[in-house]
Amino acid sequence: MLRVPEHQVAGHQASDGKLGPLIDDSGRFYKPLQNGERGSREVAFYTKFSSNANVPDHIRRYFPVFYGTQLLEASDGSGLQPHIILEDLVSTRVHPSLMDVKIGSRTWYPEAPEEYVQKCLKKDRECTSLSLGFRICGLQAYESEESGFWKPDKKRLQDFTLEDVRSSLRRFVSSNPLSDSEPDCSYASVVYGGPKGILAQLLELKAWFEDQTLFQFNSCSVLMIYEKKAAEAGISSAKVKLVDFAHVVHDQGVIDHNFLGGLCSLIKFVSEILDSPMDK
Amino acid sequence: MLRVPEHQVAGHQASDGKLGPLIDDSGRFYKPLQNGERGSREVAFYTKFSSNANVPDHIRRYFPVFYGTQLLEASDGSGLQPHIILEDLVSTRVHPSLMDVKIGSRTWYPEAPEEYVQKCLKKDRECTSLSLGFRICGLQAYESEESGFWKPDKKRLQDFTLEDVRSSLRRFVSSNPLSDSEPDCSYASVVYGGPKGILAQLLELKAWFEDQTLFQFNSCSVLMIYEKKAAEAGISSAKVKLVDFAHVVHDQGVIDHNFLGGLCSLIKFVSEILDSPMDK
Repeated sequence: MLRVPEHQVAGHQASDGKLGPLIDDSGRFYKPLQNGERGSREVAFYTKFSSNANVPDHIRRYFPVFYGTQLLEASDGSGLQPHIILEDLVSTRVHPSLMDVKIGSRTWYPEAPEEYVQKCLKKDRECTSLSLGFRICGLQAYESEESGFWKPDKKRLQDFTLEDVRSSLRRFVSSNPLSDSEPDCSYASVVYGGPKGILAQLLELKAWFEDQTLFQFNSCSVLMIYEKKAAEAGISSAKVKLVDFAHVVHDQGVIDHNFLGGLCSLIKFVSEILDSPMDK
Repeated sequence: MLRVPEHQVAGHQASDGKLGPLIDDSGRFYKPLQNGERGSREVAFYTKFSSNANVPDHIRRYFPVFYGTQLLEASDGSGLQPHIILEDLVSTRVHPSLMDVKIGSRTWYPEAPEEYVQKCLKKDRECTSLSLGFRICGLQAYESEESGFWKPDKKRLQDFTLEDVRSSLRRFVSSNPLSDSEPDCSYASVVYGGPKGILAQLLELKAWFEDQTLFQFNSCSVLMIYEKKAAEAGISSAKVKLVDFAHVVHDQGVIDHNFLGGLCSLIKFVSEILDSPMDK
């Protein structure tokens, strides 16, 4: 039985009869193909990526597993619609803390239609994409059974400044994300740090991006996931995944310098928190 | 006695009575302050950079030495004008091979006037800046006493494609840059490679750019310099210098992801030549 995902922080959402992704009980995520070229471009990416022997296994694990496409009853009641079948990245999590960070100071690609370029450029300039090389598109940080999640709404996220980004990356790994007081960064070392932490994973991705010329990941996000219960017990459960490939282009003969620059900027923010977890 | 520099591949040039830089016999380079904020911003950069104790010495050597400013008779006959006094980067070279590479897929900065933003954006999209993360603004590669330099003109450089860039980076380190046949990449290993080569220098700069948040080097160039005679003898004489700081901004609290991305892209091109010097 397909249902609306409980934990989704960004993208189209299948609530109130809208078109959006669905999940099942076996850990699969059904994403409706987006309109026009976007949907077909995302399918083309997953198909090429899955079959490309030049992608090393240690990099492949940063991408959702792709199970193909399928016609399914869409969440908006519009009848049978094609869906991409992917791994549900949070199916095994109880109270997942999630942050969706769209990487790149530029979210458009050179060959895009002019209207789309101008729309993206305007948005990139209005948010932190242009200045920081990334923007936070969605986030939820679990606090407790009683108080639930800290989950700033879309409008609030759009208005984020550099200081908001810095503080949110601290709050995200704090035991008190909903509190008005300073975030305590209690989980910084276990979530961001360590050999299996988010920083180590981002650095592994960075090394690949310094070399790979197969794909240009325009408007793609880094999704950071962890479980508070594990973090409290000092157990590393943090995962980095790349998501949203509707604007990927292929074989440009050049590294994805736009993604790489933004990724390095995010790495610097995370490193600073590990270096000084007690700073304001 | 001040005179017009013989080896200048990009920027304003003091020929035919125009305003441009001058040099003397003691190894100094006199650059007229550019109009409006540009000139004052470049002086401000050199002043801040020179006195900033957070810039490590091994990084400082990639920048021209700054000797202050001085009023001098301008090259266009307009009388006394303020000039920035810098180290002449090629004063000790006989037949310098030079390449000026403007780094960054974006040459404008967020706070710039809208008219300037649109002008830069148009240019960045028309040349390789947007796609490759850098563009070649000027170059000369020495062949011989008889045939002189290979020196494509500005118009030709503006039309450079990805393949032109790839081929020029090969031709730049070849003994036959003026030939219609394939560049032989004879000097690739001594100029680009080795512990003192250009690649090693670019990687040292990259490591600094991954960390530094002091400066955003908008529209700044990497200048690569070597001497054919030394290269023929297997002696490394290659130098990397950063030049042109009229659009630098300070203390944005973020790494220069735009410069870093473009620098990594250039590094990838240079690495590919070292990996396969015999490729077409």
